[in-house]
Amino acid sequence: MLFWWKTGLVFCNLKILFGHPDPLVGDLTGNRESILRLHDEARAMEASLLVVPEMAITGYAPRDLLLRDGFVAAAEASLAQLASVTLDGPPMLVGTPRKVPGPRGLRNAVALLRKGVVESFHDKWLLPGYDVFDEDRWFDSGEEVLHFDLEGKSVAVLCCEDLWNGADAGVSGYRRDPLSEVDADLILGVSASPFVSGKASAQKDRLRQVSEQTNAIVAVLNQFGAHDELLFDGRVMVAEPNGSVTRLNSGWEAGMTALEWGNLEAHPEPDPLDELVHALACGISGYVRKTGHNSVVLGLSGGLDSALVATLAAVALGPEAVHGLCMPSRYSSSGSLEDAQDLAARLGMVHLYEIGIEPIHEALRLSLQPVLGAVAGVTDENLQARARGVLVMGLANAQGLLPLATGNKSELAVGYSTLYGDMCGALLPLGDVFKSKCYELAVHINRHPQRFGFDEPPLPESTLTKPPSAELRPDQLDVDSLPAYDRLDRVLEAWIEHGVAEDALPDPDLVGEILPMVQRSEFKRRQAPVILKVSPKAFGPGRHIPVVARSRD
Amino acid sequence: MLFWWKTGLVFCNLKILFGHPDPLVGDLTGNRESILRLHDEARAMEASLLVVPEMAITGYAPRDLLLRDGFVAAAEASLAQLASVTLDGPPMLVGTPRKVPGPRGLRNAVALLRKGVVESFHDKWLLPGYDVFDEDRWFDSGEEVLHFDLEGKSVAVLCCEDLWNGADAGVSGYRRDPLSEVDADLILGVSASPFVSGKASAQKDRLRQVSEQTNAIVAVLNQFGAHDELLFDGRVMVAEPNGSVTRLNSGWEAGMTALEWGNLEAHPEPDPLDELVHALACGISGYVRKTGHNSVVLGLSGGLDSALVATLAAVALGPEAVHGLCMPSRYSSSGSLEDAQDLAARLGMVHLYEIGIEPIHEALRLSLQPVLGAVAGVTDENLQARARGVLVMGLANAQGLLPLATGNKSELAVGYSTLYGDMCGALLPLGDVFKSKCYELAVHINRHPQRFGFDEPPLPESTLTKPPSAELRPDQLDVDSLPAYDRLDRVLEAWIEHGVAEDALPDPDLVGEILPMVQRSEFKRRQAPVILKVSPKAFGPGRHIPVVARSRD
Repeated sequence: MLFWWKTGLVFCNLKILFGHPDPLVGDLTGNRESILRLHDEARAMEASLLVVPEMAITGYAPRDLLLRDGFVAAAEASLAQLASVTLDGPPMLVGTPRKVPGPRGLRNAVALLRKGVVESFHDKWLLPGYDVFDEDRWFDSGEEVLHFDLEGKSVAVLCCEDLWNGADAGVSGYRRDPLSEVDADLILGVSASPFVSGKASAQKDRLRQVSEQTNAIVAVLNQFGAHDELLFDGRVMVAEPNGSVTRLNSGWEAGMTALEWGNLEAHPEPDPLDELVHALACGISGYVRKTGHNSVVLGLSGGLDSALVATLAAVALGPEAVHGLCMPSRYSSSGSLEDAQDLAARLGMVHLYEIGIEPIHEALRLSLQPVLGAVAGVTDENLQARARGVLVMGLANAQGLLPLATGNKSELAVGYSTLYGDMCGALLPLGDVFKSKCYELAVHINRHPQRFGFDEPPLPESTLTKPPSAELRPDQLDVDSLPAYDRLDRVLEAWIEHGVAEDALPDPDLVGEILPMVQRSEFKRRQAPVILKVSPKAFGPGRHIPVVARSRD
Repeated sequence: MLFWWKTGLVFCNLKILFGHPDPLVGDLTGNRESILRLHDEARAMEASLLVVPEMAITGYAPRDLLLRDGFVAAAEASLAQLASVTLDGPPMLVGTPRKVPGPRGLRNAVALLRKGVVESFHDKWLLPGYDVFDEDRWFDSGEEVLHFDLEGKSVAVLCCEDLWNGADAGVSGYRRDPLSEVDADLILGVSASPFVSGKASAQKDRLRQVSEQTNAIVAVLNQFGAHDELLFDGRVMVAEPNGSVTRLNSGWEAGMTALEWGNLEAHPEPDPLDELVHALACGISGYVRKTGHNSVVLGLSGGLDSALVATLAAVALGPEAVHGLCMPSRYSSSGSLEDAQDLAARLGMVHLYEIGIEPIHEALRLSLQPVLGAVAGVTDENLQARARGVLVMGLANAQGLLPLATGNKSELAVGYSTLYGDMCGALLPLGDVFKSKCYELAVHINRHPQRFGFDEPPLPESTLTKPPSAELRPDQLDVDSLPAYDRLDRVLEAWIEHGVAEDALPDPDLVGEILPMVQRSEFKRRQAPVILKVSPKAFGPGRHIPVVARSRD
């Protein structure tokens, strides 16, 4: 799909195309072919320039694959092949690693390919080292800002953080500012900036500031697609020195976005909950496809979290690709099974299985009794959760399905989950979504089913209204073990996502109970599946907390 | 225990004590109390100076706990309390984080406490950003080298990498060298340098070079104790400008080492296999104690890996703290059970249980059959491994035992292990030890039982001699699925630990088979237990490889 943006400014002769490949990290051949297809299209459209994202040649981020000389050499060879097609086609800006003598010997570069050759590079100056980023590990900083002439207009190139300068993440921490060297009509930003729900407005503020400071038009392209825990929205935004900032596309899809000068045609920022659904669906789809799978399997308990994961998977992959497994026990209410069946019918799932866990649970109890005596309490609850984990993995193994775990961020934070039980799975789609947000999301999807491809509300009403329960003992409710989720989540969000000081947290009565639970369950999160990052601070590689530690003194 | 080292040099009036606390990350009170006890001892011994390691106040490394203002403020308060005892006692050098304006706003500092106050600081210049290190994430670099006068001698202070400069790890990558500013009789290095088998000789070479270059005596103290995957040997070494480098203690224990000037009394480098046993035992003991546990549980198959883990746990914790669980199936040979029983008797274990998995395996098979039809192949093998995992975790839950996983690095590298099955556990002690090294280690322990506290060889002979088998199907042998371990390990070691280029790897016939197995099993390692690091490149936080990636083009 193509989106055309027009402004009243003087660039009427330039037609810049922003390409959205969906790179797979390390797949140099596949990534190159995607870029070549975009270049063919750009040639046909007589573009002035094709821009593709940061590290589009390798995918972002190849991480320690960059430490292998052979990998970087292959990326450099791929770049040379891309350059050759600019001999009889439009020039191209493309992100790639490149070797340059220095302490690390490597730069995070944006190459200008023109007239069949690699004409020049912009090497990224600002290498982020916070949250999920550790670019200092691989790269040296660049030393000058690339400027080039494009059909009589002067263009400066910046790479991702060069432009954001941490402002979109609320961090600072650089001694130099590449903006100080910019002198151009147009700044092109080439980015791989991971999605964080609500980050767009901070990014727009920053672009406005950059455009005003440099008196240049600023156009920035973000990578599209999912890589492990990182989600990229593929948005293109343009800021003008008059203070206007315009989003040129709705994002979240491969293809092309065009910037043609004339009148403005802006895309509104989507509803944040709509965007969260798109982001999570992109993450599920990317992980499943890029690991060579077609379909997923998950346990359906009749509760909210598993119903929401099934719904998101259906949005991402189609309902026929979602295999649900109901695993009732003596503690499951009859309503739970009915709710799961109702969900499957509403979603249009064609694979729904039921395997009661009683015989397995009983075999486990009987086997352990001679050693343990009574099998009770948490030990017995975990047996049930783990029996279910083994069954889900059995289905996954036998049928080549990718197992999805169904926990949420609240549970994961306080350790209200069973390692090797409900935490089984390759991917934990809701691991960065607090329970109260899961409710909001479910209600939102039910309120607007058509937006997500459903004819009717996909989640059963009773799934939304019944009190949360793990159903691992008679009449168990989450509130027996945990504070109410709205109170819990307020504390967790402030503490984990916003780094609020302990003595400034909301609900001081709960703080002394909750924070030690968070530290004590670090060992579980160390073994968690990949968690799709949608918040400023997700569990996973962006949060380096020791497992063995005393959290409070 | 105290070790006195004497040299013929001119420092006859100085008595420097190197303290070995065993810090727990985040336990500011406990860590302070350990340091105060060492200071009491140093006062009684009329020391000229007490030196304790890098970040001794917080433990190394607190990682993102450093991003919390309250945490750093508490460390600074702890430092002030330590300073007060130097009013009537010897001065002290102690590592701590401290706030200093700058991009990160934090330094990795060594404080000089003297006459009751914090007199001055050395801020670490060289912040490593390779392997397990990402100190750039938290700290700004220091700008000058601390020099101070100690009883008429000039002393310069360096912090860890300031001294090593990557040389012990074979990396380079710094633009500045603090040695260029050193002008002193004595350099004191304060370090938290993780153990890597065989690293000592590179460290000695580096110390020799530093001493020759600066014409100063160089004394360096390393932290002692285990933290998550990192093991610290607590060694103290002294280099003199004449080229001699002396190890002052045998390491691997809390306490104190003294440097008194006079005659030399050196400790030899231990046998590398002895040291590997000490390192792994330190890691097990540290993890178990610091998480508040006393005892461990593990599955005993009669095979080599589980026998070796049980032996190491017995060295670390005493045999009575090691609970073994035999879980035979229809595919287990009778010899397997006997070997496990024999091992338990030889080790002096008092907790050995047997739970056959047949009833559980059968219940799982029968439960899955209606959905899957036949339950066979890898699906069926994984059911057995996972049934065992559930049992081990059941024992751990019911009795408050810490579960140990028993895999080795070779299996983990190629994915010859079952997630949520034999990979269950909080800690994976052999996860950085290749299978062939496991054999060497077992043979070594059996050859020298007394060195490790055993009266007789602890490992049954047949455990050492029978061919490796997972015993998950009739007559299964590891060599049915994998290359012979000696060939496999040669390729893996070169590829993973030494970064050898693909076309320079040994055994080219195997390379095309092995490398894709390594990439395809990355998802399993993402969910692995904490792995004790003993090699230059362990699986875990020091190896940032994407899960979703195409490894070869």
